[in-house]
Amino acid sequence: MDPGPPIFYFAFLSMPKYQIIIAYDGTHYAGWQIQPNGTSIQAVIEDRLAQILQHRISLVGASRTDARVHANGQSAHFVAQRPFDPHRLTHALNGLLPVDIRILQIREVPEEFHSRYSATRKIYRYSICTARVQPPFTRHYQWHYPFPLDVAAMRRGSRDLVGRHDFTSFANAPTQGSVARDPVRLLMRLDIVEAPDLLIFEFEGGGFLYRMVRNLIGTLVECGSGKPRDLKAILQGRDRRLAGPSAPPHGLCLERVFYD
Amino acid sequence: MDPGPPIFYFAFLSMPKYQIIIAYDGTHYAGWQIQPNGTSIQAVIEDRLAQILQHRISLVGASRTDARVHANGQSAHFVAQRPFDPHRLTHALNGLLPVDIRILQIREVPEEFHSRYSATRKIYRYSICTARVQPPFTRHYQWHYPFPLDVAAMRRGSRDLVGRHDFTSFANAPTQGSVARDPVRLLMRLDIVEAPDLLIFEFEGGGFLYRMVRNLIGTLVECGSGKPRDLKAILQGRDRRLAGPSAPPHGLCLERVFYD
Repeated sequence: MDPGPPIFYFAFLSMPKYQIIIAYDGTHYAGWQIQPNGTSIQAVIEDRLAQILQHRISLVGASRTDARVHANGQSAHFVAQRPFDPHRLTHALNGLLPVDIRILQIREVPEEFHSRYSATRKIYRYSICTARVQPPFTRHYQWHYPFPLDVAAMRRGSRDLVGRHDFTSFANAPTQGSVARDPVRLLMRLDIVEAPDLLIFEFEGGGFLYRMVRNLIGTLVECGSGKPRDLKAILQGRDRRLAGPSAPPHGLCLERVFYD
Repeated sequence: MDPGPPIFYFAFLSMPKYQIIIAYDGTHYAGWQIQPNGTSIQAVIEDRLAQILQHRISLVGASRTDARVHANGQSAHFVAQRPFDPHRLTHALNGLLPVDIRILQIREVPEEFHSRYSATRKIYRYSICTARVQPPFTRHYQWHYPFPLDVAAMRRGSRDLVGRHDFTSFANAPTQGSVARDPVRLLMRLDIVEAPDLLIFEFEGGGFLYRMVRNLIGTLVECGSGKPRDLKAILQGRDRRLAGPSAPPHGLCLERVFYD
């Protein structure tokens, strides 16, 4: 096996950095981040990249999506020891990856780019199937909630959530990593779109705390189910026990990460 | 275990017949019909129905969909030894069935109803993903064809197919059952709908020969790929070797079966 260039060779070169945009079906994974138990999406891509690049890399994702959460546009970066043609690398990587993980794009980025810290906005989408019987095709991608939902009440609730708030009441303590030191986040937009047998919630924000979207959905569904919830009071209380339960993970999809 | 009523009891009653409308994700099945190898959708439903009804039934489907073909509205019938409330039976059956098979409706039908022979029209849909990289979410439901397709040429081809024709050139010999004695079928409508990264072909007809939709798609894709195909001549030739190859099964979905 090619051991790769010796250290002194690339010590004189700046090592190229790449951004990679990824779509995945999270159904069969333990989440984005490398876990002690279960296969993570990060690990699968790192392994296949190592096969191609002939050296290990560390893939840093913009969002640590949970088990069974999906992505249409996860963003990550890595540093390679030698430059590669992004288009050929995309093709080679998709050839090695399982079909439930697809590389949509790879591009070279400046040294200072960071998939998480350089991100200025993210869009998450949460889908609820409201049909009496859930069609089998959506079972991994939509939460089945076949009970009456008052969409107007949910829209009223969502208006109290948009803006810059301390979202402590909607954040779980992460099982890995540290709790965010600053729990203030800017939620720029929360749209609720109605389609036949389907409700789509689109969240656009500067950043999201751990489990925040799923906890917001769980609480909004309470609002829509006739349980009176004062979302302003929940925000002000800064206590996770005030808000509703987490909605299940499989309805959630990381749609896109923006950089300015 | 309850052995069910003795024979003389229901000999005096007409046994109730039920129509059942089913959606399924065909990905993990060997097709609708009971097969020597692999699990069929028919067998799974028959087994669960037997558990509830306390006697075996024979489920007759309107369409014998192949392995990996899906249904949004397959229709089937069975005869029970005693009457059941259709709504409660739907609920009980969905509770026992795997989540990739869902019962949408059950209704009592007259004795002369037959899911296949009483059907007057069927709608099939075939989906092609034309994106360079296929999103993981559609991998089981759309054929990935990331090459240029001339939709206008395919539409011109489709116009020669609509109408009452001998479709022998587009029919495979079935692996089970007999070849249709009369290969003339009425194709009432063939719409091609364009969406971003997606082409949907909707076929509405009085009936379809074995593999007919997939063979029509394979041949239309040839038309769209710059291969000149005279569809009138192919129909008139009455020879399977004249038409294009079968498109893969997973792009196909039985949408609906109509009865007058």
